[in-house]
Amino acid sequence: MKVVFLCGGIGKRMFPITEDKFLLDFLGKTLLEHQMETAKEVGLKQFLVIGNPRNIEQIEQITRRTSGVKVELALQRQSLGIADALKSAEPFLDRDIVVVNPNDVFTVSAYTRLLQESRRNSAASYVLGYKVKDYFPGGYLAIGSTNELKHIVEKPKPGEEPSHLVNVLIHLHTKPKKILEYIENVQTTRDDVYECALDNLVKDGYKIRVVPYADFWAPVKYPWHIFEVVKYFLDTSQPQISASAFISEKATIEGKVIIGDNVRVLENAVIRGPVYIGPNSIIGNNALVRDYSHIGADCVVGYCTEVKGSYISDGGWFHSSYIGDSIIGKGCSFGAGTILANFRFDEQNISVRVADEAINTGRDKLGAIVGDNCKTGVNVSIMPGTRIGPNSIVGSHVCLMKDLEPGKMILAEPRYRSLPNEVELDMAKKKELREKLERSRGET
Amino acid sequence: MKVVFLCGGIGKRMFPITEDKFLLDFLGKTLLEHQMETAKEVGLKQFLVIGNPRNIEQIEQITRRTSGVKVELALQRQSLGIADALKSAEPFLDRDIVVVNPNDVFTVSAYTRLLQESRRNSAASYVLGYKVKDYFPGGYLAIGSTNELKHIVEKPKPGEEPSHLVNVLIHLHTKPKKILEYIENVQTTRDDVYECALDNLVKDGYKIRVVPYADFWAPVKYPWHIFEVVKYFLDTSQPQISASAFISEKATIEGKVIIGDNVRVLENAVIRGPVYIGPNSIIGNNALVRDYSHIGADCVVGYCTEVKGSYISDGGWFHSSYIGDSIIGKGCSFGAGTILANFRFDEQNISVRVADEAINTGRDKLGAIVGDNCKTGVNVSIMPGTRIGPNSIVGSHVCLMKDLEPGKMILAEPRYRSLPNEVELDMAKKKELREKLERSRGET
Amino acid sequence: MKVVFLCGGIGKRMFPITEDKFLLDFLGKTLLEHQMETAKEVGLKQFLVIGNPRNIEQIEQITRRTSGVKVELALQRQSLGIADALKSAEPFLDRDIVVVNPNDVFTVSAYTRLLQESRRNSAASYVLGYKVKDYFPGGYLAIGSTNELKHIVEKPKPGEEPSHLVNVLIHLHTKPKKILEYIENVQTTRDDVYECALDNLVKDGYKIRVVPYADFWAPVKYPWHIFEVVKYFLDTSQPQISASAFISEKATIEGKVIIGDNVRVLENAVIRGPVYIGPNSIIGNNALVRDYSHIGADCVVGYCTEVKGSYISDGGWFHSSYIGDSIIGKGCSFGAGTILANFRFDEQNISVRVADEAINTGRDKLGAIVGDNCKTGVNVSIMPGTRIGPNSIVGSHVCLMKDLEPGKMILAEPRYRSLPNEVELDMAKKKELREKLERSRGET
Repeated sequence: MKVVFLCGGIGKRMFPITEDKFLLDFLGKTLLEHQMETAKEVGLKQFLVIGNPRNIEQIEQITRRTSGVKVELALQRQSLGIADALKSAEPFLDRDIVVVNPNDVFTVSAYTRLLQESRRNSAASYVLGYKVKDYFPGGYLAIGSTNELKHIVEKPKPGEEPSHLVNVLIHLHTKPKKILEYIENVQTTRDDVYECALDNLVKDGYKIRVVPYADFWAPVKYPWHIFEVVKYFLDTSQPQISASAFISEKATIEGKVIIGDNVRVLENAVIRGPVYIGPNSIIGNNALVRDYSHIGADCVVGYCTEVKGSYISDGGWFHSSYIGDSIIGKGCSFGAGTILANFRFDEQNISVRVADEAINTGRDKLGAIVGDNCKTGVNVSIMPGTRIGPNSIVGSHVCLMKDLEPGKMILAEPRYRSLPNEVELDMAKKKELREKLERSRGET
Repeated sequence: MKVVFLCGGIGKRMFPITEDKFLLDFLGKTLLEHQMETAKEVGLKQFLVIGNPRNIEQIEQITRRTSGVKVELALQRQSLGIADALKSAEPFLDRDIVVVNPNDVFTVSAYTRLLQESRRNSAASYVLGYKVKDYFPGGYLAIGSTNELKHIVEKPKPGEEPSHLVNVLIHLHTKPKKILEYIENVQTTRDDVYECALDNLVKDGYKIRVVPYADFWAPVKYPWHIFEVVKYFLDTSQPQISASAFISEKATIEGKVIIGDNVRVLENAVIRGPVYIGPNSIIGNNALVRDYSHIGADCVVGYCTEVKGSYISDGGWFHSSYIGDSIIGKGCSFGAGTILANFRFDEQNISVRVADEAINTGRDKLGAIVGDNCKTGVNVSIMPGTRIGPNSIVGSHVCLMKDLEPGKMILAEPRYRSLPNEVELDMAKKKELREKLERSRGET
Repeated sequence: MKVVFLCGGIGKRMFPITEDKFLLDFLGKTLLEHQMETAKEVGLKQFLVIGNPRNIEQIEQITRRTSGVKVELALQRQSLGIADALKSAEPFLDRDIVVVNPNDVFTVSAYTRLLQESRRNSAASYVLGYKVKDYFPGGYLAIGSTNELKHIVEKPKPGEEPSHLVNVLIHLHTKPKKILEYIENVQTTRDDVYECALDNLVKDGYKIRVVPYADFWAPVKYPWHIFEVVKYFLDTSQPQISASAFISEKATIEGKVIIGDNVRVLENAVIRGPVYIGPNSIIGNNALVRDYSHIGADCVVGYCTEVKGSYISDGGWFHSSYIGDSIIGKGCSFGAGTILANFRFDEQNISVRVADEAINTGRDKLGAIVGDNCKTGVNVSIMPGTRIGPNSIVGSHVCLMKDLEPGKMILAEPRYRSLPNEVELDMAKKKELREKLERSRGET
């Protein structure tokens, strides 16, 4: 059996974070590597990865360094959906396949259940159905009494769902050539060609079984979905501190913490897990990293910086900053006094504008979403839910209230008034304060 | 003997802090409870509390939970002064009374001296006279050679005081009905009816003795008087750390500290007493609380926050903030980078505008005075002596220079300039910095 | 032999730091004292110090407290250069002299080499020639095959230097009266009268030998040259912690550190050497001082303050501030949240405008240069390389982007909008957050 990872799409809604969600790093590995590992856990070792011209090289690098597996690559020239992806890979679809969207994070039990079911009976396809509790804007699976698929309903209105089972793209096909044939025959201008093909197979009497699934499932559509993935990986990993890491005796490490090679945690720093710190990163004096934070490799979380519940990519450099519930791209540097606000005055959920639509993130705590290679000056503030495009700069004293496009620089234009300094510097007062200090034990 | 607490007045000059000063919490108890305890120390256990329609219910709750005392309540319909208060309570004035202004803080020796004096001779009334060193804007007691009251002079000009004894409203009356009778007969439109009645009693030959007093006395008229009361209660209390409090081994507790139930003091926090921390409060990592600070219940003094010489009411939530010499009402939340400035450039005393008058507070260090349920954004500054009315919000990046009314929101309207980012991100430089870091032991 | 220190010049390019560079304090002593000590090391104990009317008194105080030396003082009425200085001191030039610019920092080997050479042969003068690797904008020494001086070339263009030896003003003269005579005869309106006199001596057949020198040499011309001098003195000193200093057991002292009398280093403070802390200074709780920082006497580096690679003069008072790669004059106070930015977005070298010329400092990290007795408000930022004249004030929320003249006050003039606060304070949310807190171990 071959696992087919569809990596040819473009995650536009992830802006300003990578369009290739499967390239996101979690605990030192790309999501694609995690996906391959999950498959390997149930003995699946033959993979087909379908990429696009922009990312195929990176995919190749990743798969080349993955041991114990056989990987084929296919190129999807344009990002036109699942059906198109499968067509691009036709020559490789020479046996049973499991088609997987590698941007959805799930547990190994998804495979186990699918394979188990396929052994028990002989349907043409097996489709994973995630049991939702609340309405989810996806495709719903209408099923019969023995879990046979009747119909896929794309994004029904709330209340009109045909079941509580959402179509998750972990589909086992025992007749992949037949799928391709039906795909060719679908007549539609919509983008659900693949789902129509499945529907038509059902209509023509092919059996497609729905396999219910209730374990962890996290589709990564928007940047803030990353938080849930971080939580998942941290919750399911073992704590570990690399032998090459230096942890000051005066630092505090509490809870589940994963600390990579050559990490240095300096005096009075506090790491309160679950937390991941990537290799070569430095957690500076008196810094605080806590509550499901994920720090990439080669980062400096400097003096007096707090990172809470945030995802920080490789090479971040911070300094007397507050980073709460935020997502930070690669190679970002923040000036001292940069604060990413993460809570509204009205304590309501934070919305993010994506393509002219305000998306309720469902989170009452959300900081900034910052693309790669951004910088901020000193005493900068970013309002909750603000997105900053890659390669942009936020100047000192800017309070950024709306999204900043990529490759931009925003500068404060304050007004100041200069006048003679009439203040008589009262040195007696200073002396008196100092004497008070001498008598006391602390500062004044 | 019955102690009569006059709680029916309105402390307008206390804005934006409570109008009912006797409801202020000190060390976990309202000032009224402290007053009752002081009285109990000399065996006085029968109390009459005169409240007004707005506060009578709270008074009832407080007195109900006070054990070992007998309390009567009287309702003063309008807040028209001492004489009016006593008239409202006429039916209860059935024995010797000590009329007390519960907003003045004093030691038990005030009662002791008054009672001693009343046992030694048989005057109609005994009036406490506080020995002032400097001019104080209050009523002065003109006395004869044997300390008998001759006349009460309301607010004489400095230099024209008839004595150094200020009239403190801790008055023992052995003939309360006679007082009421004289009150009825006073002809004045001024608000010193009660004092006129005493004057008239003297004129008619009744004996009123002045009892000099030189112990602690702190009238709470303006919010900043709270600091002195905090100091008094901390100085006269024993240090105590609740058995249910968690104090990290890496935290520092120094000096006299009172820490309530379930308090948590996290790693690298420093508490340098005298300091009070109310129940359930959290002093976060690397926070500093010092020098006569009083933190109420259910507060979070978060990471990197310094509280110095401040009075913070219940439910405060702070975060990377500096709170110096300030008074903060209940349920306030400050965004990271909020700084309450407490010192003028010219190092002179700080004045506060109260009802169109600039009142010199006599303090060269004074921060903000903030009403209940206020919030600030991030990187906010409040200038020394500024008052913020309850339920108000100070937006991010605002530098508040004058008072903010209740129920207002003040927002920054900065001007920014956006332009293409021409900065070539010099990754070589970053690499070089990092290599420097590798070689060094700290951060760069 | 007599060492002649030329202290009569005015270091205008040092603005806003002292014009008398030899008065700068390093490790508790003025540069002039360091100079005298260096001379003493080779047995030179007879000094002539030439001052000007403004500084002669301070020089006298310094030399008076220097033991084991014989010091003469001469007054140079106007600051007109080396030749003029020597003329002012004519009566004292009664034996062999070494003329020294006390603003250049060098090692004792400069003297040793000069004296050695003078013992070996019998030239009229011996001139130190510093071997430069890169172009340096100074006077170059053209020499013959036996190191005899042929000509002094003032500031040749890069590439046109006659040698790699720069003229360093450590000149031994065995015929000082002859030098004076030649000085009198120089016909020029330029300011290199002294150098012309040397040239003329050579022309007339007097032998002047150039003594090459390759040890440490740091001319202090601009304020940022101070950093190199701090580094030199720290690198060449022994670590030492005064017995009268209090170092909290919870403080961290790492690397080479010199800590003066009565210094107090409070809990969780980190000092990462090489660092010098002058007497009576306080390093407050959780503060960080690191990487060739030099803190003068009577300073307070308060809570949450980081000082990195900076030179801070006596009496500084800081508080929740970031001071990186900066030079701070005497008696400065910074409000909380004051940040001295030290790095450009484009990561290029920082230039400073000196007398209408942008001087490339050769440093990619440089903070502010602040004169004596300056103050900043809260949440203030100073951009890299900015100079602030003495006795000036930077108001709260100012982001200072260009130099501020002495005796000025610059204030923010922000625009704010006040409106009714429509935010319904959702106390349920707060309660929920608190309950989450109760369950967790940290803060939320």
